[in-house]
Amino acid sequence: MLKKEKLIKSDTIFKGKIINLRVDTVEVVQNGNITTRELVEHPGGVGIVAVTPENKVCLVKQYRRPFDEIIMEIPAGKLEWGEDHYACGVRELREETGYTAEQFVYLGEFYSTPGFCNEKIHIYLAMGLTAGEKDLDENEFIELYEYSFDELMDMVSENKIKDGKTVIGILRAYDYLNRKK
Amino acid sequence: MLKKEKLIKSDTIFKGKIINLRVDTVEVVQNGNITTRELVEHPGGVGIVAVTPENKVCLVKQYRRPFDEIIMEIPAGKLEWGEDHYACGVRELREETGYTAEQFVYLGEFYSTPGFCNEKIHIYLAMGLTAGEKDLDENEFIELYEYSFDELMDMVSENKIKDGKTVIGILRAYDYLNRKK
Repeated sequence: MLKKEKLIKSDTIFKGKIINLRVDTVEVVQNGNITTRELVEHPGGVGIVAVTPENKVCLVKQYRRPFDEIIMEIPAGKLEWGEDHYACGVRELREETGYTAEQFVYLGEFYSTPGFCNEKIHIYLAMGLTAGEKDLDENEFIELYEYSFDELMDMVSENKIKDGKTVIGILRAYDYLNRKK
Repeated sequence: MLKKEKLIKSDTIFKGKIINLRVDTVEVVQNGNITTRELVEHPGGVGIVAVTPENKVCLVKQYRRPFDEIIMEIPAGKLEWGEDHYACGVRELREETGYTAEQFVYLGEFYSTPGFCNEKIHIYLAMGLTAGEKDLDENEFIELYEYSFDELMDMVSENKIKDGKTVIGILRAYDYLNRKK
């Protein structure tokens, strides 16, 4: 039978700019075993599938240190602790692409890697875009690209999009727009 | 212009059972700034979309400490460092569900959260299943469920599936099976 584990104690190992690391000691209720669970605390994020008037989707290319690679993603950003995810989505879209949107549709949230991390990523579909000025952080460098949904669906099928939130964003937005028809 | 950051030094803060935590000091090549990047090292994992002879997909329900919630996921597991992901997929499917599969189709890999973590998750579609005995770890408790693709596609659209690899696995498998037709 499934049961929640009982928390015995929680040790914070590291508090960083982006993430904290915690080790929880828990009791597995079914068998009384005591074990530890390593877990990363993250404030969560927002990813935006932004569709231009030409019916193309904006992607951003950027460097990611954990893979030492430059990869393609939907515009996205980290929530400030306690920040509203809609406000964060509006802000990040403008900062990374310069676009503001007439309409933001919430497509839901997912857990990026629930085995060891409490990050929730919220996905928005943004439509009715107006171009404007980007506003990047000092150490943030990105390149903008635009693709049609047909191109993106092929890129996903051919495994050319590596970022999880981008795969989910594209597939969820495509599904949403097609179910509406 | 996009450039890789230059590593100055790498400090390991924590070495755990599942994850390590590292703080890299890097030079942002474009402006010469020195900054730090917090990052979680993870050996990677495998998720399996297993389709039964009745054309249903197996999901497992389990407790996840980071959210203190019981959630629904595809069968999945962590790679041992250096382990082949096909071998891991075969093993995890058998351990969690008892099933062995005649056919494993590789649907590709994705990065669960590349901003701060190097976890890669490989997705397999398993078909031609034969039932057998489960073999769970001592502190692992799961419940098995089976859903049709139609039910799963609705659950994804209604945001009832929270786990990222499960959303990607379902959507990628559905797309793969429909493109084949």
